[in-house]
Amino acid sequence: MEIDVFPTITSATDEGLNGKVVLVVDTLRATTTIAAALDAGCLEIIPVITPEEAIEMRERLGDERVLLGGERGAVKIPGFDLGNSPLEYTPEIVQGKRIIMTTTNGTRAIRKATPARLVLLAALINAPAVAEAVVGMGGGDITILCAGTRDRFSLEDFLTAGLLVSELEKKGNYILRDGALAAREFYRTVRTDILKVLKQSLHGAQLLELGFGPDLEYSSQVGILKVVPVYNGGLVKKYSAGD
Amino acid sequence: MEIDVFPTITSATDEGLNGKVVLVVDTLRATTTIAAALDAGCLEIIPVITPEEAIEMRERLGDERVLLGGERGAVKIPGFDLGNSPLEYTPEIVQGKRIIMTTTNGTRAIRKATPARLVLLAALINAPAVAEAVVGMGGGDITILCAGTRDRFSLEDFLTAGLLVSELEKKGNYILRDGALAAREFYRTVRTDILKVLKQSLHGAQLLELGFGPDLEYSSQVGILKVVPVYNGGLVKKYSAGD
Ligand SMILES: [Mg+2]
Ligand SMILES: [Mg+2]
Repeated sequence: MEIDVFPTITSATDEGLNGKVVLVVDTLRATTTIAAALDAGCLEIIPVITPEEAIEMRERLGDERVLLGGERGAVKIPGFDLGNSPLEYTPEIVQGKRIIMTTTNGTRAIRKATPARLVLLAALINAPAVAEAVVGMGGGDITILCAGTRDRFSLEDFLTAGLLVSELEKKGNYILRDGALAAREFYRTVRTDILKVLKQSLHGAQLLELGFGPDLEYSSQVGILKVVPVYNGGLVKKYSAGD
Repeated sequence: MEIDVFPTITSATDEGLNGKVVLVVDTLRATTTIAAALDAGCLEIIPVITPEEAIEMRERLGDERVLLGGERGAVKIPGFDLGNSPLEYTPEIVQGKRIIMTTTNGTRAIRKATPARLVLLAALINAPAVAEAVVGMGGGDITILCAGTRDRFSLEDFLTAGLLVSELEKKGNYILRDGALAAREFYRTVRTDILKVLKQSLHGAQLLELGFGPDLEYSSQVGILKVVPVYNGGLVKKYSAGD
């Protein structure tokens, strides 16, 4: 069983996705926010590529439990109910709701992962739980697909990939391909100062400037959630061992 | 002035290449071998994508100084004069020669870099010289394009990217994008054991098995050559400050 890491969506090869267990990472902030939303009792998240798609889908569904969430340029989309801050997705707001979501990088990464056998979503806040679920399922190669930032390498996703590799290694017996080795090494080197890495990253610095410092702090808390989001048939829900 | 790193050919975006100074890295072994060949007195290297293209070009050129070099599956191509081992490219064999070369990853990476303002080729053996040449040229964004191994992240190229970032930073004033930060961090962590990293990498391990251990040793020697290969108009030659 192998683990490899693709640092951006565009770098992912078909061979690296087809039939694999793919862990999609968009730590700032889509996969963090999705984990937080599910943990807060949201029923499901429907990732879509464009804001127009989201608005059309809400009309088509005609379900009053539907909320629209997501960002462009890191800020809430006009007409949407929620932005892309995990701190907005509280039980008071999202419990029992279905959220149609579109973000710049994260939802594209989730869609890119569809040739996989199983797609789970990971961030720093739930990586240990995701690793445990993966090992619990037994065999198979694992591909970690980093969303990156506008098709560029992103530090926070590579860091999370390294944490995932490190957690998987503790629990299972894997051969690490080069991307996994480098990510693990990076994680090990900076593990005592995760928040600093998030602030140092290009996208983290942009979020800080926009006043999203609390999002960085929240996103940096390794393993605070046990929730494992799974993407299947166009929907993200909580994973349970039977899936 | 920015530095960014693309860990694979497929991850490189047009925006990251157009008009930039691009440093192409294929440490195992194309850019190591090209640096060695130029250092040994080879006049020029003509990178081509396929063995067929190489053979046709030799016929078309009708020049007895032409040699064919390169590999498929890491071994010499049938009918070629040379493989892809830097140790084959000695002054006795390559001095005054023109070499048409095709390799699995490196020559593709060089071709991919063509929208750049300037394309230089780097490996561990000549990275400090390449960094010095780049800083000497003055301004402009720098993109480090790793060849990777069959479109996968490769440890040895990421390591070399990190060495380049580290050398550039010593000499110039650059903003590091996330890929450059991660590569530099990786280089710093493993810098005292470069050969071990080469052996640990997927492609390095394959080369070891094929008996190319001495190539790994040669390739691991940081800064032993002062040669700076430049790719321009389809040819790789020695760079001089006027280029
Ligand atoms: Mg992101
Ligand atoms: Mg290579």
